[in-house]
Amino acid sequence: MVFSVAVAGASGYAGGELLRLLAAHPDFEVRTVTAHSNSGQRLVDVQPHLRSLSHLVLGDTDATALSGHDVVFLALPHGASGALTAELPASTLVVDCGADHRLESEADWAAFYGGDYFGAWAYGVPELPVDGGRQRDRLVGARRIAAPGCNASTVALALAPGILAGVIEATDIVAVLAVGPSGAGKSLKVPNLAAEILGSANPYAVGGTHRHIPEIQQSLRWAGAVAPTVSFTPVIVPMSRGILATSTARLVPGTSAAAVRAAWESAYADEPFVHLLPSGQFPRTADVLGANTALIGLAIDEAAGRVITVTAVDNLVKGTAGAAIQSANIALGLPETRGLSTNGVAP
Amino acid sequence: MVFSVAVAGASGYAGGELLRLLAAHPDFEVRTVTAHSNSGQRLVDVQPHLRSLSHLVLGDTDATALSGHDVVFLALPHGASGALTAELPASTLVVDCGADHRLESEADWAAFYGGDYFGAWAYGVPELPVDGGRQRDRLVGARRIAAPGCNASTVALALAPGILAGVIEATDIVAVLAVGPSGAGKSLKVPNLAAEILGSANPYAVGGTHRHIPEIQQSLRWAGAVAPTVSFTPVIVPMSRGILATSTARLVPGTSAAAVRAAWESAYADEPFVHLLPSGQFPRTADVLGANTALIGLAIDEAAGRVITVTAVDNLVKGTAGAAIQSANIALGLPETRGLSTNGVAP
Amino acid sequence: MVFSVAVAGASGYAGGELLRLLAAHPDFEVRTVTAHSNSGQRLVDVQPHLRSLSHLVLGDTDATALSGHDVVFLALPHGASGALTAELPASTLVVDCGADHRLESEADWAAFYGGDYFGAWAYGVPELPVDGGRQRDRLVGARRIAAPGCNASTVALALAPGILAGVIEATDIVAVLAVGPSGAGKSLKVPNLAAEILGSANPYAVGGTHRHIPEIQQSLRWAGAVAPTVSFTPVIVPMSRGILATSTARLVPGTSAAAVRAAWESAYADEPFVHLLPSGQFPRTADVLGANTALIGLAIDEAAGRVITVTAVDNLVKGTAGAAIQSANIALGLPETRGLSTNGVAP
Amino acid sequence: MVFSVAVAGASGYAGGELLRLLAAHPDFEVRTVTAHSNSGQRLVDVQPHLRSLSHLVLGDTDATALSGHDVVFLALPHGASGALTAELPASTLVVDCGADHRLESEADWAAFYGGDYFGAWAYGVPELPVDGGRQRDRLVGARRIAAPGCNASTVALALAPGILAGVIEATDIVAVLAVGPSGAGKSLKVPNLAAEILGSANPYAVGGTHRHIPEIQQSLRWAGAVAPTVSFTPVIVPMSRGILATSTARLVPGTSAAAVRAAWESAYADEPFVHLLPSGQFPRTADVLGANTALIGLAIDEAAGRVITVTAVDNLVKGTAGAAIQSANIALGLPETRGLSTNGVAP
Repeated sequence: MVFSVAVAGASGYAGGELLRLLAAHPDFEVRTVTAHSNSGQRLVDVQPHLRSLSHLVLGDTDATALSGHDVVFLALPHGASGALTAELPASTLVVDCGADHRLESEADWAAFYGGDYFGAWAYGVPELPVDGGRQRDRLVGARRIAAPGCNASTVALALAPGILAGVIEATDIVAVLAVGPSGAGKSLKVPNLAAEILGSANPYAVGGTHRHIPEIQQSLRWAGAVAPTVSFTPVIVPMSRGILATSTARLVPGTSAAAVRAAWESAYADEPFVHLLPSGQFPRTADVLGANTALIGLAIDEAAGRVITVTAVDNLVKGTAGAAIQSANIALGLPETRGLSTNGVAP
Repeated sequence: MVFSVAVAGASGYAGGELLRLLAAHPDFEVRTVTAHSNSGQRLVDVQPHLRSLSHLVLGDTDATALSGHDVVFLALPHGASGALTAELPASTLVVDCGADHRLESEADWAAFYGGDYFGAWAYGVPELPVDGGRQRDRLVGARRIAAPGCNASTVALALAPGILAGVIEATDIVAVLAVGPSGAGKSLKVPNLAAEILGSANPYAVGGTHRHIPEIQQSLRWAGAVAPTVSFTPVIVPMSRGILATSTARLVPGTSAAAVRAAWESAYADEPFVHLLPSGQFPRTADVLGANTALIGLAIDEAAGRVITVTAVDNLVKGTAGAAIQSANIALGLPETRGLSTNGVAP
Repeated sequence: MVFSVAVAGASGYAGGELLRLLAAHPDFEVRTVTAHSNSGQRLVDVQPHLRSLSHLVLGDTDATALSGHDVVFLALPHGASGALTAELPASTLVVDCGADHRLESEADWAAFYGGDYFGAWAYGVPELPVDGGRQRDRLVGARRIAAPGCNASTVALALAPGILAGVIEATDIVAVLAVGPSGAGKSLKVPNLAAEILGSANPYAVGGTHRHIPEIQQSLRWAGAVAPTVSFTPVIVPMSRGILATSTARLVPGTSAAAVRAAWESAYADEPFVHLLPSGQFPRTADVLGANTALIGLAIDEAAGRVITVTAVDNLVKGTAGAAIQSANIALGLPETRGLSTNGVAP
Repeated sequence: MVFSVAVAGASGYAGGELLRLLAAHPDFEVRTVTAHSNSGQRLVDVQPHLRSLSHLVLGDTDATALSGHDVVFLALPHGASGALTAELPASTLVVDCGADHRLESEADWAAFYGGDYFGAWAYGVPELPVDGGRQRDRLVGARRIAAPGCNASTVALALAPGILAGVIEATDIVAVLAVGPSGAGKSLKVPNLAAEILGSANPYAVGGTHRHIPEIQQSLRWAGAVAPTVSFTPVIVPMSRGILATSTARLVPGTSAAAVRAAWESAYADEPFVHLLPSGQFPRTADVLGANTALIGLAIDEAAGRVITVTAVDNLVKGTAGAAIQSANIALGLPETRGLSTNGVAP
């Protein structure tokens, strides 16, 4: 069976990546693509790398255009999907790549986003723990899925095993991320210009203001943390895509090195897309470029009393579009790995 | 008066940067440049950006070639300067850009470097506290100066004011740095190849193994810390030069935001090369490219209980060659700012 | 049927790209990977992006290891494959990604490469004209195939249609290419270091010395040129992979704009991997990153009397490994497009 | 004597570079900086790399603000300076970094720019030939100067010596340039976003449409060409600044290699800022980053019948702001090299 698919927000970076992955997926057929200002153009004129989809033309983003498909992927600005999805049939699988349905806490939503709150959907990071199982348990048969924030899911994947196993403390987590500017989308602002970013490392949202912080805390609570605190600093570096997250937490006193490594090993031993690297190895973002893989390197700094994790993901794949498709696979009863590659494009 | 200068290791990146800065210095005249495998070549054939020094030819690096100058700058591999400087007159100002004379603790040297230990010299970061004053007090009239490690001095400048003022804790410091590959020199290894670094963020020395850790701790002890602990992770990103250090420390409970900011303001209010940015502003490495400036942005993350500093330096200037010349200015009784620019080359 | 495959030179960039593509190919199974200095290591420790091949271990490159497979891909330094392939059975399909078997003229070989000459094999650019047909005619059933030089095939694809149709002159062709450093392989030389290439554009082989010049001329002669002359200048720019070739030729006087465009349209209308862009559009290398696609933009500069083509390819895919697999598909009777994507990874 | 200076357009890239250079110039003092939408802000908040000018505040750009200075530098969008300068005293030295006063031919202006034509001023590339002498002859005592287009002056400097000496043909010139995106200014368009340019080479203005073409032709006519034709293709590559121009022309038949080299040697032997590299050497843009230097490499491709020049300049320095200041030095009777460096910031 082939599932018919619509993608809203097809002219942006997340939308483009959804389409690149969907084009290689044997069970999905993209029938409808929609956009805002680019409506009416050929998709390939806006996304010139999507050669195999040159037959598609961008339409307007509205419920009429999106209805009548088995699956609808939304890659819209924050705040845009809530009202729209209310008009789509409950039987349609809707996967939202925006933030609108990620947070279970309306207070968190109000504090970090604001505007109307539309409630939380099943969270599209299948490997993360919840309710004594994994998020994938909630995704089976789901018809509403919230794809994760790229930075948030990266830090959560990095640290959840240690929280779950009780080998790291959930207070005083410190995460610093090197991120590519594609995460900011096609937003026309001076700090996003090439001349501003080439040859430079540029921090933003310093000091506890980044919107992904409550999402990280939510995932760590699902893993068992009571009141996690996270210092989170993203730094934009001159690579188009990729996240390299250095996520550290205090080692629970008295924990052996073997127990630490065992926590991550047991969490991800059977995961197709999240790989713990051998001791002494650490990942590069190039290793996961274009892939749905998260690679995690793990070290214990005894002198500093911290566990150090370094995690590489492609923000547009495992961080967004790949997570969305992986979750859709689960929801629809397809093999979880269908249509998704673990191999990066390097160098 | 013009001081005659020799530069050893003139074919490398640190040596090249020393020469670029010295060429613009009104009181220094470079008379001798030496190298190892490039000896015999015209300097400009090896360093084609140094057009104004095209009259210089590289000689061999030995005491004979270096003797007879007022100032000798050494930009040699770690371990190479100790024996060499023993042969130079005590009256010659020798500034070593290598690690050989940075650490006061022989145990630290043995643990992180190894080989013969040659003792510590005056430390070339004039703005850092020591003995109730600043390092510049020790540099006045000095004839042996150790230029700092670029990563170490960046983190030390970022956090020393908070330690000195007692507003941050010295244990459980966490620093993650985005660094350019010029810090690795011209070392011919696969991880330094352009194809490995372009488009990727690559961590190294993860987990407490980096050689700059004891140097950071030493500076923090000078600032008053008793037993500082530092989790330190450098990440190579695709920019030729620059360090962006996110250095965080626990806020001492009960400290006001005003007291925190006052600590940094009082430390650097009169410093020509270390600038605290206004509240809410954070630096980019492009802002200090080619300049002897360290820019520090400061935030308090109340929820996380941490003070966050983000500091930008050019690893080859304020991190190495600029620090060396600033320190030489002090040692020779010249104005400290002579020949050094605060303005970066951006974009 | 699944064809068993061996890849020699699996630790390099071309070898890695062959493996990335082969891992996604439904009819090939990689059973053997060999290397030189990395022999004995796990493949994934040397090529950490190839997660799906983590079961493979690198062996030594010799005829014994490579024998017994249906297909052998060679990604070895120039001069290394000639003797080796002589030991492989004639029935084995051997695809050489090196230069050893590209040139039909022993004089060209001697002038630009030197050393033993091993003769030319079927040339792995199926779309190029030869003998009134296409190179793919020669590839059907072939058991010895020379994958092209990446720069050479890019320029040849750009200009062959105009030569074939007689609308451009074959003398005084001028091609200038922006190329990524992965084309130079993992060669440990100072000009290949990241610090040398980041933030800079660096020319090399200026003035008619590049080894791909005779290969371009050979392709243009196949297209009908009598004595083509080519000014060829490659410029390394800070992107890990990609070629953007601006290839220009004099317009044959009296030729209409329609005739020019028709020449390229008729040449590539049915080609799955070589696409002529609509008038006024020009390609970017990002559009073909990771894809087996060549995108060609075409303009006529009436005032200058030249036809301008701008062509984007991924040097490691359509320029090397993708061309090798596309050619192997043809040789083995598989659909030519099997296992190869036309969609780039952008942004 | 210190000349008082105003800079209009101080918030842009060209304006920022003027200020960086002026801050290091011993005879100029910047008293006024103006902008459009950033008026009212501190200069250093918009140009955070200009630390030494942190006392300046941006005002509105109008004749009142600019009057009363010895020198006014304009870094405004094309078309904005014509009316403004009419209001400034004739005795004020006005240097325009826009295109408004570069072209002597009103027809060229109409064809490539359009809008009101304001006439040509002395052309700010002192080294170029005109009237049997150099442009610097016209700049002595001038009070209206047009700084050049960065691409145009680079190609003109590359080829004028060969035209002047009669060793290359002026018809069928082909120039392809790798350029950094800072040349496009802070224009908020999708193609200027970092995610579009990182990891990619992007052509623009292909096929004879670029506005710098008539400016190149004008310079070549000044050098003696009758009816020069130029195929000109710029390619944006991922470096913040820099131009690497591969400019080629047909060798006049029968010309010796010695005569070719002599043409360039005699043209630039005494020039402080334009250097011909030794035979076999070619420049990189890193070698001139931040410097007012143009480096030219020269080769003869006998087989192709062309002279190949490869020229590196910093588009913001020798291409714009440095040329403006060099020209102002001449106009005011200062040493031509005052305040300008020949040394690049590399790596």
